[in-house]
Amino acid sequence: MLAPWRSPLARALHRHRRQPQARYLQLATVTPEGYPANRTVVFRGFRDETNQLRIVTDARSGKIAQLLQQPWGEICWYFSESREQFRLFGSLVLVAQDSPDPALQQERQQIWQRLSDTARSQFAWPHPGAARDHRPESFAVAPPEPTAPLAEFCLLLLEPQRVDWLELCGEPQNRWRYVRDATGYWQQAAVNP
Amino acid sequence: MLAPWRSPLARALHRHRRQPQARYLQLATVTPEGYPANRTVVFRGFRDETNQLRIVTDARSGKIAQLLQQPWGEICWYFSESREQFRLFGSLVLVAQDSPDPALQQERQQIWQRLSDTARSQFAWPHPGAARDHRPESFAVAPPEPTAPLAEFCLLLLEPQRVDWLELCGEPQNRWRYVRDATGYWQQAAVNP
Repeated sequence: MLAPWRSPLARALHRHRRQPQARYLQLATVTPEGYPANRTVVFRGFRDETNQLRIVTDARSGKIAQLLQQPWGEICWYFSESREQFRLFGSLVLVAQDSPDPALQQERQQIWQRLSDTARSQFAWPHPGAARDHRPESFAVAPPEPTAPLAEFCLLLLEPQRVDWLELCGEPQNRWRYVRDATGYWQQAAVNP
Repeated sequence: MLAPWRSPLARALHRHRRQPQARYLQLATVTPEGYPANRTVVFRGFRDETNQLRIVTDARSGKIAQLLQQPWGEICWYFSESREQFRLFGSLVLVAQDSPDPALQQERQQIWQRLSDTARSQFAWPHPGAARDHRPESFAVAPPEPTAPLAEFCLLLLEPQRVDWLELCGEPQNRWRYVRDATGYWQQAAVNP
């Protein structure tokens, strides 16, 4: 069942459908040492029949160690035209090459197939964050097979538990909080901006 | 002395000078329970003669308890026209009404003065995040005095320790890492995107 915050989020996405950067959002995690980390990732749609947001990531990226230790994240998503912010706090599920769940593995393969050749090629680049590899051939890789995800390719699912929606354009501003209770039901309340 | 990442950041800000939302950035912190938190805040410029980013916040907001426990934050700042991301990890200094440092207190007063009446009024609104106050008069407050900051008004300074600059538009993309060493010197290196 779709959570109640899905409608306003779908409206914001529709309103910004001509701006590719409206699908960029910021994902915060916590490092094993307890420090905050924050980076921009691309929204790859919701997993069918769920409220899980799909993100892709490289198995060699820093966030992997972070979410193995602390599997919770908070997304901050700002829409500049409609002046709205969605904060989505939830658990993170990593679907790597060795993930045993067949349904999740199938999902990983499908998302890989839908990526562009350019996006797929990045998973064949040298280790992200390592000292710069200046050999041009290291980045001029042949596009990987669309049917077989590279080992470095991971799918990341965020299952929201709490959502905060702020509309800056109201007078005064409007803000709603949604919390998923133990039975899976979403409680919803207007709160002060 | 200006840190070496200040020039590319100044260029990005200049290039986006007609887009007010380019001064919106995402600040990640850690809750006392060890969970990530993430929200959009407005960049209020650098403190003179320093590399400290200025942000304003409400003493009643959730991030206050977070940064008292874990005074580190990571900013993620994405510039949509130039397709660049800056990640700034650093320590957070809260300048509240009772902060004893006279220089910081003066800075707090100056930033308060530069806010618009609308921005100042928000600090006189009902408790943010509490159940919605539906009385229109609660939000229709008289603009506070520009010379005397309300008790709720806090200045927040982020002193970067590590910066990661990613240019998505390169072929391949370009990425630099800057780290401030114990002597205050910024080490700089090209890394793989």
